[in-house]
Amino acid sequence: MAPNADPPVRIGLIGAGRIGTHHATALARHVPNADLLAVADAFEEPARRLARELGVRDAGIEELLDEESVEAVVITASSTAHAELIARSATAGKAVFCEKPMAMSLTEADAAIAACQEAGVPLQVGFNRRFATDFAAAHAIISGGGIGSPQLLRSLTRDPGLANPSAVPPSTIFTQTLIHDFDALLWLNSGAAAVEVHAFADALVAPEFKDAGLLDTALVTIRFTNGALATAEASFSASYGYDVRAEVFGSAGMVTMGSPAPHTMQHWSADGVTRRTVRSDTDLMHESYAAEFAAFCDTVRHGAPVTVGGADAKAALEIALAAIASVEQGRPVRVDAIRAGVA
Amino acid sequence: MAPNADPPVRIGLIGAGRIGTHHATALARHVPNADLLAVADAFEEPARRLARELGVRDAGIEELLDEESVEAVVITASSTAHAELIARSATAGKAVFCEKPMAMSLTEADAAIAACQEAGVPLQVGFNRRFATDFAAAHAIISGGGIGSPQLLRSLTRDPGLANPSAVPPSTIFTQTLIHDFDALLWLNSGAAAVEVHAFADALVAPEFKDAGLLDTALVTIRFTNGALATAEASFSASYGYDVRAEVFGSAGMVTMGSPAPHTMQHWSADGVTRRTVRSDTDLMHESYAAEFAAFCDTVRHGAPVTVGGADAKAALEIALAAIASVEQGRPVRVDAIRAGVA
Amino acid sequence: MAPNADPPVRIGLIGAGRIGTHHATALARHVPNADLLAVADAFEEPARRLARELGVRDAGIEELLDEESVEAVVITASSTAHAELIARSATAGKAVFCEKPMAMSLTEADAAIAACQEAGVPLQVGFNRRFATDFAAAHAIISGGGIGSPQLLRSLTRDPGLANPSAVPPSTIFTQTLIHDFDALLWLNSGAAAVEVHAFADALVAPEFKDAGLLDTALVTIRFTNGALATAEASFSASYGYDVRAEVFGSAGMVTMGSPAPHTMQHWSADGVTRRTVRSDTDLMHESYAAEFAAFCDTVRHGAPVTVGGADAKAALEIALAAIASVEQGRPVRVDAIRAGVA
Amino acid sequence: MAPNADPPVRIGLIGAGRIGTHHATALARHVPNADLLAVADAFEEPARRLARELGVRDAGIEELLDEESVEAVVITASSTAHAELIARSATAGKAVFCEKPMAMSLTEADAAIAACQEAGVPLQVGFNRRFATDFAAAHAIISGGGIGSPQLLRSLTRDPGLANPSAVPPSTIFTQTLIHDFDALLWLNSGAAAVEVHAFADALVAPEFKDAGLLDTALVTIRFTNGALATAEASFSASYGYDVRAEVFGSAGMVTMGSPAPHTMQHWSADGVTRRTVRSDTDLMHESYAAEFAAFCDTVRHGAPVTVGGADAKAALEIALAAIASVEQGRPVRVDAIRAGVA
Repeated sequence: MAPNADPPVRIGLIGAGRIGTHHATALARHVPNADLLAVADAFEEPARRLARELGVRDAGIEELLDEESVEAVVITASSTAHAELIARSATAGKAVFCEKPMAMSLTEADAAIAACQEAGVPLQVGFNRRFATDFAAAHAIISGGGIGSPQLLRSLTRDPGLANPSAVPPSTIFTQTLIHDFDALLWLNSGAAAVEVHAFADALVAPEFKDAGLLDTALVTIRFTNGALATAEASFSASYGYDVRAEVFGSAGMVTMGSPAPHTMQHWSADGVTRRTVRSDTDLMHESYAAEFAAFCDTVRHGAPVTVGGADAKAALEIALAAIASVEQGRPVRVDAIRAGVA
Repeated sequence: MAPNADPPVRIGLIGAGRIGTHHATALARHVPNADLLAVADAFEEPARRLARELGVRDAGIEELLDEESVEAVVITASSTAHAELIARSATAGKAVFCEKPMAMSLTEADAAIAACQEAGVPLQVGFNRRFATDFAAAHAIISGGGIGSPQLLRSLTRDPGLANPSAVPPSTIFTQTLIHDFDALLWLNSGAAAVEVHAFADALVAPEFKDAGLLDTALVTIRFTNGALATAEASFSASYGYDVRAEVFGSAGMVTMGSPAPHTMQHWSADGVTRRTVRSDTDLMHESYAAEFAAFCDTVRHGAPVTVGGADAKAALEIALAAIASVEQGRPVRVDAIRAGVA
Repeated sequence: MAPNADPPVRIGLIGAGRIGTHHATALARHVPNADLLAVADAFEEPARRLARELGVRDAGIEELLDEESVEAVVITASSTAHAELIARSATAGKAVFCEKPMAMSLTEADAAIAACQEAGVPLQVGFNRRFATDFAAAHAIISGGGIGSPQLLRSLTRDPGLANPSAVPPSTIFTQTLIHDFDALLWLNSGAAAVEVHAFADALVAPEFKDAGLLDTALVTIRFTNGALATAEASFSASYGYDVRAEVFGSAGMVTMGSPAPHTMQHWSADGVTRRTVRSDTDLMHESYAAEFAAFCDTVRHGAPVTVGGADAKAALEIALAAIASVEQGRPVRVDAIRAGVA
Repeated sequence: MAPNADPPVRIGLIGAGRIGTHHATALARHVPNADLLAVADAFEEPARRLARELGVRDAGIEELLDEESVEAVVITASSTAHAELIARSATAGKAVFCEKPMAMSLTEADAAIAACQEAGVPLQVGFNRRFATDFAAAHAIISGGGIGSPQLLRSLTRDPGLANPSAVPPSTIFTQTLIHDFDALLWLNSGAAAVEVHAFADALVAPEFKDAGLLDTALVTIRFTNGALATAEASFSASYGYDVRAEVFGSAGMVTMGSPAPHTMQHWSADGVTRRTVRSDTDLMHESYAAEFAAFCDTVRHGAPVTVGGADAKAALEIALAAIASVEQGRPVRVDAIRAGVA
């Protein structure tokens, strides 16, 4: 029987919040080689609602991990629970896909990675930009030498909405949002490592929450081992739409990628020529989410190499932690100090 | 149980050629509310190969139509067989989706439409451009009054490859290729009907086959009941990629849609700034194919109105026939003469 | 002394209307190798006003042609007077630049061309699109073989404003507006000649003037000697700005050119991503006007070859006359019949 | 007499190098309200050559400043001479236009500004980006409230060629190149002042000259008084063309501006869709240079307000000096420390 006709990977999903709902729906409907069996959540009601909507079973977390028919777990729970859930899933013998960030500290990350290695299960982390068509095309050009050596990079994330500033923990912009940009920069920069990080950050969108620690706007610069210099930039309030873009300038050319106006329709009127934008990550990045899950299932079913693993996720986390330290200390921070726990 | 959890529509597909292979694969993997049960073909081997690849049953055409579990038939057989297969499928009580053109003559089209009406089954025809994201967005703007009254329209199709000029029947460019543009123009022009058609056509790509009747390049102009004037343009040899675009200019604005370089990645080098193109209809239009099948299944399962029906397909065919007559007669041809069978 | 330091060409301009005012200003200020000496008009007041504005002399037409210091005449008078003014200027020994159309009939055109040849003076006609940066770049690519043989061409002109429909003679859209497109198509199509012309035209912008003969919207198709097929399209009412574009598809590629939003600034807001447009030919095409005058002065001063001559202008006029005949007769018209005066 | 017919401003230019040659040519040919009388240089031969080419007088610097008919001086000499030449020109009673940077230190800048104030002559500094069509359009949108409060800004300059790395003094990338970006950011950020500056810089293009102090790649971040965060980025080796762009993101929208492929022609081939770029500042920015000179002449002749004055130039210089200090000290530097001379 041809590989295509192999049975889909039987998946249990943990975390029935906003992104969990999107991912569960994608797994149930848009990922041909996935078969969503059940959803669990720390709370009963969200799991029940989502399960009903998709016609799958709901379960408690423990129950889901105990379920033998579940081959792989997709973790979309609260970030603070990620590392522990990775370890528990691995120990239960499940292949693991975890949303970013994989952990909130390097110690946690190490423990989660070790648990997967011990259990011999694959671990993929949700850096979906690598699976977006234009990001992948740009990466292919870089890998093929099409821009020479990367020298100046830029990645940005701008989210249209900051619904509830009081609910945003101080480090969120670094560990939740910019961590995507840090991974994209590491990946696009051909595997060079980060050496030094400087960050400016402020509460410009909701200044009344600044004293409570809110950072809603950040500008991070990074120096890499290959000498390349990079910017990562984020805002929690892009009025014009969800904006994810990157640019890599090298010794022999440049690639640019991403747009909040991803399709080609243009409206020409007395106001000018207008392209429409999309307003959520799940609209803008839907296909890349489906693609990362397809890749994960291919790893689980056919042993394809892990596309974005624990070491990748830890490297992005190191930059996030260095950026947080830089804001606190008002100076650039070396990543090796973060690694050594001395920054 | 919520509508989303309704069982998918059980489909049998007839015609295991190039587009049939694409559509069967899409139905099996990328259309959540479709369940491909079986594929048939006039020849045994292609059906068997495709069925094996997708892990579904293969069947003879008769057998497939007799199969009670099949609710709906998707026809991707040779165009000359379309009308008859529509009628047979309808008579067998199946909902029908047929690739364009629905028929090769108006008489055939009428018979196929009548058969579906008699049997009380829905008929959808494969004008997938209506389901492409940017075309749909443009249509929404037109319908919402965003460009006023359409006055000048343009639609074009350019295919990268003319593999075997000797195998192309004379009217192909009109009945197979431009029929997409004729439907797009009718749809974008807010339902106005075609009044008069003029066409120039030639064998410019493969002039050595001109005497054998090949037409590989065509330029058709159409006058509509609302006074709007339109161009439809096709070529069988676009070196730069598969190109499907349209433009609608109205009294209060314009919409443009389509691009052979559909994603936003750009490569900047000493050669300039370059966007990559795609080279096949199935690459360029894949999502619109999946979307038209999803709409069809929604009609079958939930009685949603038919999106592109027999009357639509017949209107596009009338323009194609008028264009063929115009080339033969070297003058503009009135569509009512085509309807009356006197042109 | 270096060529650059040669004295500028001493110019007299005839016709102080809208375009004459633009051209006189351009000659006085933006064409380094031109020196505007005087302006004349059939009426005294406009000439006086314009002369005062620019600090040059005003003169009667006869007086201007008699003035020895005037080396070259730029004709921006009413179109019906063009041919006669060309002949008179040539007879007076002046180099001649004439706005399009050079004449209203082929007989007039022949007489004007003959007068220039007899007098041994250069004649350039105002097809400024050839001097627009992007049109010139596209032409260079075509000439260099970058798209192979042209097969399908398109050129369009859309003007934002139809101020006074009652003042527009019936053939205006062909002889005044589309004549630019006819010249562009002839030029971009590597010198092939027009064989056959079909035109649809209507009063869609101001239908209440249709009975008075107004044609404000036109769609012309042309078959050329090299087999290429072309569309020329015009409207007198583009709500979104002045729109001049062209596209040439060939056996090995395509070039596209022109945009009503010519600069790169984009405004991203809740409405989407917007580029601003310009609303007049003199805003959109200003630089190409200055460039055509610079080329003309180079011909006058240094004997550089005429860039757009009488034969070019006559070929565009033939297509315009064929399009007018096509609309009147409701059928395609052969250009050789126009040439022979029998269409 | 109308203002337009006022006599042009009589200009003497000092500095016949690359940019001086461009500017002298622009003044002689493309700035209607300028009249280039003479060019001077510290060396006789370049002045003589340029004067001959343009058909104007050549002069010694002293001689030019003594010449009564010269109303205004344009300084395009070596940067280290700028401040002194501004002062000498002012003392001689001439209006002054000086290329950037106006000075190499704040003390020098203050002296030059004081000299102009004392003499009562206008001083304009050559920040031509403010006069580029798309930058001006973006600024107008920002000023009109079209993007709300600026929060994240970016400006970049990438030059295609680093001909002779050994001839580039260490601070060049900050004082010569990025100073354009610093001015653009100050101007686009609605007049907010810079508070703190961090810079990474390296020799990535010509690493073999790093020990000699070469910095050919730089990434500067700036925090402003209004909380906005900005990036300025430069490279001395853009393989794809001269690249000047900016982006301003605000609370209610964004503007983007600039492109190395400034016209709309696109070439579609088997390689994709390609736009051509330009390769020099004088090609890319020619019109903005002519426009800044036109504005200067308007100030001199009609007393129009100075568009970019000494205080503007000093503010940009302060950021450059802070960036240099930041690279040297490996930490962010406060601009008030630079102002106080203590950083």
